Amino acid sequence: MIVGRVVNTVVSSRKYDSLQGLKLLVIEPYYGDDKTCFVAADIIGAGTGELVLITTGDTTKYALEKDAPIDALVVGILDREPSI
Amino acid sequence: MIVGRVVNTVVSSRKYDSLQGLKLLVIEPYYGDDKTCFVAADIIGAGTGELVLITTGDTTKYALEKDAPIDALVVGILDREPSI
Amino acid sequence: MIVGRVVNTVVSSRKYDSLQGLKLLVIEPYYGDDKTCFVAADIIGAGTGELVLITTGDTTKYALEKDAPIDALVVGILDREPSI
Amino acid sequence: MIVGRVVNTVVSSRKYDSLQGLKLLVIEPYYGDDKTCFVAADIIGAGTGELVLITTGDTTKYALEKDAPIDALVVGILDREPSI
Amino acid sequence: MIVGRVVNTVVSSRKYDSLQGLKLLVIEPYYGDDKTCFVAADIIGAGTGELVLITTGDTTKYALEKDAPIDALVVGILDREPSI
Repeated sequence: MIVGRVVNTVVSSRKYDSLQGLKLLVIEPYYGDDKTCFVAADIIGAGTGELVLITTGDTTKYALEKDAPIDALVVGILDREPSI
Repeated sequence: MIVGRVVNTVVSSRKYDSLQGLKLLVIEPYYGDDKTCFVAADIIGAGTGELVLITTGDTTKYALEKDAPIDALVVGILDREPSI
Repeated sequence: MIVGRVVNTVVSSRKYDSLQGLKLLVIEPYYGDDKTCFVAADIIGAGTGELVLITTGDTTKYALEKDAPIDALVVGILDREPSI
Repeated sequence: MIVGRVVNTVVSSRKYDSLQGLKLLVIEPYYGDDKTCFVAADIIGAGTGELVLITTGDTTKYALEKDAPIDALVVGILDREPSI
Repeated sequence: MIVGRVVNTVVSSRKYDSLQGLKLLVIEPYYGDDKTCFVAADIIGAGTGELVLITTGDTTKYALEKDAPIDALVVGILDREPSI
């Protein structure tokens, strides 16, 4: 899983119905030099600035109540910044 | 998911039947220094220059009516350019 | 999906039975500075020098008649070189 | 699979129920110049400093007793540091 | 699929039962400047120094007799070094 920081949200009015109700967060990776942002869906209420844990690929299905075309999902919010 | 800009389309007459009816868009990543383009299928009508949200891998199946060998699919069109 | 050019084939006599009958093509990515080659299976007859469209991961199963351990498959041959 | 060294753990009180009981380890890749850390779940008891073998993506399901949104899992602890 | 050279093996006494009987090979990528090694399981008997073809992700299941948490598997041994 990837540790990342929520830095923004994206808004999309024209999207698949199965994405309705999912917040779309812009995530900046916490580890490494490559800070290329990506988008993760969220249903647990992560806020801007929080550090989150993200799972990728088809494993997102194990956390969703209905199937959705989502390859990145917030699965946890970190209590504090890791020391390493 | 990846945010990208539609920069072109590709035309392929010799392709799998299950790809018929899917537009094949050339996508330039929006975030990061690496602007290496890739191809995503589209059925929601994204146009050249628009910013789109793309899911990858086997999660594309949750948005397709029939199975297709597609590892990148446009699932939303962004209303506006993200501030970050 | 990835756009790539067929630059070679690989020959493997000792391989899984389910790979029999699949041509194994060496592909050079068309977009980007990283030209690291990889191998894609092909059953639609792409020839050396042609530009092809490749799907990756477990989505290859939607184009194969029988299951095979293949994470990259040619799904289309481009009519012409993209302008971008 | 990836060889990595356990360098830390992350703590997340707000997470999916299916992640309860899984230790979340920060892993530093052993091979290569890119030492960008990631998080892997662990149920076999790897300790800080140990070298572990990690599988990624949806293959984690084959080692879990119940489905969980996890894209990286420790599947083995190395007996010793590889010579190469 | 990835072409790589077998450069070592890793030994793990503490691992999932489903990994028993699978040889764990350290693989150096053949193509490209990035020679970061990874581990692939092998059941067809590839030896050190040989060039092999590796499939990744959940496609490994199509070559395994029983499910195993393995995201890289040797599926063929190359007859000779590719000219490109």
